[in-house]
Amino acid sequence: MFEAIELGQSLSKADFKTQEQHLRAELLKVQRDLAESRVATLIIVAGVEGAGKGEVVDRLNKWFDNRGMETHAFWDETQEELERPQHWRFWRHLPARGSIAVMFGGWYWDPIHRHAAGSIDDAELDEAMQRTRELERMLTADGMLIIKLWFHLSHPTHEKRMKKRRAVARHVPHVSNGQSPKEYKAFLVAAERSLRHTDTGKCPWYMIEADNRRFRDISAGQVISRRMNERHRGHRTEDPGSEEHNPVVTISGHQKTILDKVDLEAALSHDDYNKLLSRYQAQVNELSWRAYDAKCSTVMVFEGWDAAGKGGAIRRLTNAIDARLFRAISVAAPTDEELAHHYLWRFWRRFPRAGYMALYDRSWYGRVLVERVEGLAQKHEWMAAYKEINDFEEQLIEHGSILLKFWLHISPDVQLQRFREREKTPWKKHKITEEDWRNRGKWDDYRRAVNDMVAHTSTGNCPWTLVSANDKYNARIEVLRTVRDQLKQALD
Amino acid sequence: MFEAIELGQSLSKADFKTQEQHLRAELLKVQRDLAESRVATLIIVAGVEGAGKGEVVDRLNKWFDNRGMETHAFWDETQEELERPQHWRFWRHLPARGSIAVMFGGWYWDPIHRHAAGSIDDAELDEAMQRTRELERMLTADGMLIIKLWFHLSHPTHEKRMKKRRAVARHVPHVSNGQSPKEYKAFLVAAERSLRHTDTGKCPWYMIEADNRRFRDISAGQVISRRMNERHRGHRTEDPGSEEHNPVVTISGHQKTILDKVDLEAALSHDDYNKLLSRYQAQVNELSWRAYDAKCSTVMVFEGWDAAGKGGAIRRLTNAIDARLFRAISVAAPTDEELAHHYLWRFWRRFPRAGYMALYDRSWYGRVLVERVEGLAQKHEWMAAYKEINDFEEQLIEHGSILLKFWLHISPDVQLQRFREREKTPWKKHKITEEDWRNRGKWDDYRRAVNDMVAHTSTGNCPWTLVSANDKYNARIEVLRTVRDQLKQALD
Repeated sequence: MFEAIELGQSLSKADFKTQEQHLRAELLKVQRDLAESRVATLIIVAGVEGAGKGEVVDRLNKWFDNRGMETHAFWDETQEELERPQHWRFWRHLPARGSIAVMFGGWYWDPIHRHAAGSIDDAELDEAMQRTRELERMLTADGMLIIKLWFHLSHPTHEKRMKKRRAVARHVPHVSNGQSPKEYKAFLVAAERSLRHTDTGKCPWYMIEADNRRFRDISAGQVISRRMNERHRGHRTEDPGSEEHNPVVTISGHQKTILDKVDLEAALSHDDYNKLLSRYQAQVNELSWRAYDAKCSTVMVFEGWDAAGKGGAIRRLTNAIDARLFRAISVAAPTDEELAHHYLWRFWRRFPRAGYMALYDRSWYGRVLVERVEGLAQKHEWMAAYKEINDFEEQLIEHGSILLKFWLHISPDVQLQRFREREKTPWKKHKITEEDWRNRGKWDDYRRAVNDMVAHTSTGNCPWTLVSANDKYNARIEVLRTVRDQLKQALD
Repeated sequence: MFEAIELGQSLSKADFKTQEQHLRAELLKVQRDLAESRVATLIIVAGVEGAGKGEVVDRLNKWFDNRGMETHAFWDETQEELERPQHWRFWRHLPARGSIAVMFGGWYWDPIHRHAAGSIDDAELDEAMQRTRELERMLTADGMLIIKLWFHLSHPTHEKRMKKRRAVARHVPHVSNGQSPKEYKAFLVAAERSLRHTDTGKCPWYMIEADNRRFRDISAGQVISRRMNERHRGHRTEDPGSEEHNPVVTISGHQKTILDKVDLEAALSHDDYNKLLSRYQAQVNELSWRAYDAKCSTVMVFEGWDAAGKGGAIRRLTNAIDARLFRAISVAAPTDEELAHHYLWRFWRRFPRAGYMALYDRSWYGRVLVERVEGLAQKHEWMAAYKEINDFEEQLIEHGSILLKFWLHISPDVQLQRFREREKTPWKKHKITEEDWRNRGKWDDYRRAVNDMVAHTSTGNCPWTLVSANDKYNARIEVLRTVRDQLKQALD
């Protein structure tokens, strides 16, 4: 989830100046508008330690008119608060109609930290998040606008900031030591789970890359301004999931996605390829028998651009596995019987038995890729699918299965070259159709769909592997290596 | 929750015959209609042991056309099923578009039984129910009609049937011993929690009194027929809570409610009253100090008909308690500040500190009583309020507070008599207004609202006490005795 925000976005000083000026005027105006129409606005500022939540809030206090705006931090509970149910402290600070409240962490801080510290388990965290969903649903139904911002730092930047903090902490008594890398990791696990359960159509999360301070503040301001303006113009998303929503905040004009992070230069010589191929295939073969003995099932999903080499990669993998142990499932148009059921039914029914493997050439992700881009699923349908898919995969994982997900990434040039080759080669000609050319025309739409897919469904338990596939050798080896590593890790 | 269904409803043989004939024709017709419009119907048959779920399903198989209908029981998991995630067994048996599936227990059976047996805790049960909600939401969004029936037996009938079963079990090897009273109780706790979490606008529960077999089967058939016909006519409730829904199934024409169970003849002599009054007041006084020492807060809610004697009962109670320990809060029209917040805000803010007491003369239940009947809240608002109130109260209980809820019940005659008295008595005249007379005109609407309120919000942790208040002495003593018993139980 969080890897989708680590894009290295930044903003120059000059750009910041221009944007800030514009933004301030906008924020002041919309604050007055919503005060007049008596809409309560709640801004929740959350994120990893060191991301500068305090600086963001200071900025908001500078940008907004302080009259009609309050900021609340929830550090240690007061005696007054301890004597009441947990949510009492939040209720007493909820904004009245027409005013704005900024809450540090809000109702997220405590459960996330307690889960990260190991004092509550998954079920208890989920329960807290369920309560949170209900609370937010209730407040939103009552007319409140809730804007939830999550500030993320990449691991290196986080470590750098924590080091700085530790240096300060040695001299200044009130500064804590900051999260260690281990704590940071546990924190992200809890955070991801919490965000996933509370990212609803009415109260979506906005994830902001906080490595660059100027980008961070302008992004935050822009999201707030946009949501408040939408609300002022009367948009009130009533149906969860009805609003198209990209959780990763980018500044208008900047269109980086997670796919830009894939190093498409990666390549392997023929010799290296052959050497690695036979080594990994032997290892995967052995591991597949170990999985069989351990009665552990494996599900692998292959998605990617047309002509990215999914078929070839799958073949190199299945060559390594005893034919009795796997089924390769090519997902084409659904049968009549499948059409008579929910779209996930066809995948549930094919679920492998304990110890066996299923390899999907295209999968349930069609819902948020081709069905989204081609308009075969309605917006609220594919929006809802992220959660449906996460729930589905969570059930696989809970049952003890291994799930691997690959996106084979190539550049448009390489695709064009491969399309042309296919047209020229007699035995490959059938592989290229009108449709492939049409899909190619929608490259940018797919790029965006892939980015949203990774942002929503790359979870700690079921991460996506983005494979650099301009070089086919490299793609196949990357897939085999990942399969080997993941199987090994799961079985050890 | 379940007490609201224990109304002793039954059906004569002759009535059954007539109703059955009509029902069969209707069910067959609507089955064909939905087959044509390709709507999948899933009927979940659940409830306590001995309620006759098998008999109901046999009846449905007789009533419907067996082609296009399947019945599934989920006893022990097969090896095939054990090798897949838990929900796999349900997915494989989901009805295709145009057909009907009946599931015994469905996805409810396992979590409820495991919670009742103590092998999963509250958080884990809630998580399972959260998953269930999502599953049902997803299937409903895909066009499925899900009808959930819960068959309940009162404790005496349950015990009688279990005894019979135990007698049979001695001779027949395949018959189990049946639930003991203790198991029955644990089962109801788990069931109530599960039903409460999964009673949504799209997939509401229908609770059917199963003591009388004829009533049980006709009720079930009528609910199914009604829901299928609504669906055929194109009603597709999209917004949770948008449909007016009475969870307690009654047969059209029969209008019994839980209020009919209150024995309005109960009365006390002046002497008995005085004796009990001073005894209970002394005990409550002592207990209120114990609660203070234990830092345990108490919240009491008084609702009831106009002129039912709430004020008098509250006064007899507060007379017993040191004035420093309690606050009596009379809930009148909200202030400006309160209007600027969610309707629950005014109650959150008044929440007593640890060890103190708050007595509410009218309360948050106004949302589902006066606001519902007078149309001050929209249907989806008061429908959603049941869950909101349950969540709110659950937080009080979790925090360790004691919550007591009283409904003071009188007959319409007694109310009339008291209204007249008030009009004649100079110092009581101010207590009777135009509004009281207007409310009186809506007696039946209020009766229904009270019934739904009890059905939805009388939970194991926060039950309603229905007080027989035709006799004021009796009402006051019943309130005092309940307060004493509940405080004692909580503090011991």
